[in-house]
Amino acid sequence: MAVFTPVTAADLATFLLRYNIGTATSFKGIAEGVQNSNFLLETTKGRFILTLYEDRVDTAALPWFLALTTHLADKHLPVPRPIVDRAGVALQTLNKRPAAVIEFVAGVSVTEPTVEQSHSVGVALGQLHAAVRDFSVERANNLGQTHWRAMTTRCNGRIGEIDPALPGMIDAALAATADWPNDLARATVHTDLFPDNVLMLDGRVTGLIDFYFACTDIRAFDYATTHAAWCFSPDGQTYHADRARALAAGYAASHGLTAAEIAALPRLGQGTALRFTLTRAYDWLNTPADALVTRKDPMAFARRMMWYGAATPDMVLGA
Amino acid sequence: MAVFTPVTAADLATFLLRYNIGTATSFKGIAEGVQNSNFLLETTKGRFILTLYEDRVDTAALPWFLALTTHLADKHLPVPRPIVDRAGVALQTLNKRPAAVIEFVAGVSVTEPTVEQSHSVGVALGQLHAAVRDFSVERANNLGQTHWRAMTTRCNGRIGEIDPALPGMIDAALAATADWPNDLARATVHTDLFPDNVLMLDGRVTGLIDFYFACTDIRAFDYATTHAAWCFSPDGQTYHADRARALAAGYAASHGLTAAEIAALPRLGQGTALRFTLTRAYDWLNTPADALVTRKDPMAFARRMMWYGAATPDMVLGA
Repeated sequence: MAVFTPVTAADLATFLLRYNIGTATSFKGIAEGVQNSNFLLETTKGRFILTLYEDRVDTAALPWFLALTTHLADKHLPVPRPIVDRAGVALQTLNKRPAAVIEFVAGVSVTEPTVEQSHSVGVALGQLHAAVRDFSVERANNLGQTHWRAMTTRCNGRIGEIDPALPGMIDAALAATADWPNDLARATVHTDLFPDNVLMLDGRVTGLIDFYFACTDIRAFDYATTHAAWCFSPDGQTYHADRARALAAGYAASHGLTAAEIAALPRLGQGTALRFTLTRAYDWLNTPADALVTRKDPMAFARRMMWYGAATPDMVLGA
Repeated sequence: MAVFTPVTAADLATFLLRYNIGTATSFKGIAEGVQNSNFLLETTKGRFILTLYEDRVDTAALPWFLALTTHLADKHLPVPRPIVDRAGVALQTLNKRPAAVIEFVAGVSVTEPTVEQSHSVGVALGQLHAAVRDFSVERANNLGQTHWRAMTTRCNGRIGEIDPALPGMIDAALAATADWPNDLARATVHTDLFPDNVLMLDGRVTGLIDFYFACTDIRAFDYATTHAAWCFSPDGQTYHADRARALAAGYAASHGLTAAEIAALPRLGQGTALRFTLTRAYDWLNTPADALVTRKDPMAFARRMMWYGAATPDMVLGA
């Protein structure tokens, strides 16, 4: 997205005095992420991303996000490390916004995942779930199962404007997911590991990014979300069982699913597809058609929601 | 500005096969320029800017722009060089848009110029004017003096919505600039050398960028435009004579103004300020207030227009 909060060369020079990362040699706003102002910063000592957090992010949780990604970088996961200032502090303020400097990592976002890339992201997700075993601070999921009815209400009865069939599809999914597998193991989860949040080079994961929806929730819900994001065509019309098999094999290699988690996968997939249908529906109904933002089609996830509603665990595993 | 035309990793990989610049290791849309989709591209062989030209640019003139910047890079000016493909061609097509890969140059855009930086840009402008002496292909200025009345009409009588005084200010400037110094020397000129189109490091110019308004026009008109862009506070309220003196000294060191050009500076300044007032007024009246674009205040240049209308040549030189 565009840069919402401008940062001048003078602002930047003063800000960098707090750090031990040199002086700026290049500084460009980047059209990345959907919520914050991001800049690619090159200094005499390296390359970094400067993020100014805008209102859409849960700014109260920024210390938690930064602690989590620092924890993951410490565990040698491919997660960009927050850079601390001379006093050891990562979270700063710049131009009245919370701000942080983050390590730059090479890599290119996947768009249409291959089987090999689906395997790699499965491995990385399992490594993530292994690495958070000793990350004990919890954060509630503001977009979790207990919120979906309120998220539906928030659309003010206008969901039928998107597609006349959509209100009925959502009602059915709300009813089905009322039976939610709350007894499954919980963990710190990413909940948004879409291809555009994974950087890769030659099929290898070099960066897991955008942890700003991370929270504590059912661990296998994260698997289901990654499955929904990687194993369908973008419009949700086509299921790629070969990618699903690769994702499952990759995850099994680094973490693995229990029998109870496997049994719950169709319900978890239905739930995560409902969550993205609802947030996209709200954005669709509240984004001016002429805004310089590409609105994401809620139906792409409503179709996934229907698929999971009729799926068996084996189908989710691609078996 | 935002990225208008998305480029996927797969699109990019195929596109790069045409070149001898390696494979992508990083690729990020950048929020830079007001007209095109720009990406910062890092490959195994170096760093580049990939530009997809959108409708606002005069695409018929792209071969001319690329020939000009290649000419300037050949002359060792700090101008990013267009990269040619294996067949020696710079102008390509990508996702149905004209596209070019351009050399990346380090440096940070100035925001509030210092006296030293004003001197440096004066030197660079003079070097530019020296380097185009043997660049003989001409391009008309679509926003030049002969167009200003039509540009006023295009605002449909709505200019008073911006400020009740503005229509009268514009009419006076239109009348004054009807007496235009057409006998002055003509040259290839940048016509948009604002601080955000100049990259600097430690007060040294490392990049002159964004030549997409370059054309053939009165050479000293380029000096006047640079003066208007560098020697006032952004809102046009404050004139910085110290910067004007430094700009004049820098330009004198690398090129210099004739007595006739100096005599015409107030009129040329009035004209360039009118041009920016008119384009900003049109954009102001035709940009939705809720668009994710910062509208630039036309009055900032209307104030400069009034200043030049009352200025002497010595005042423009900061003498």
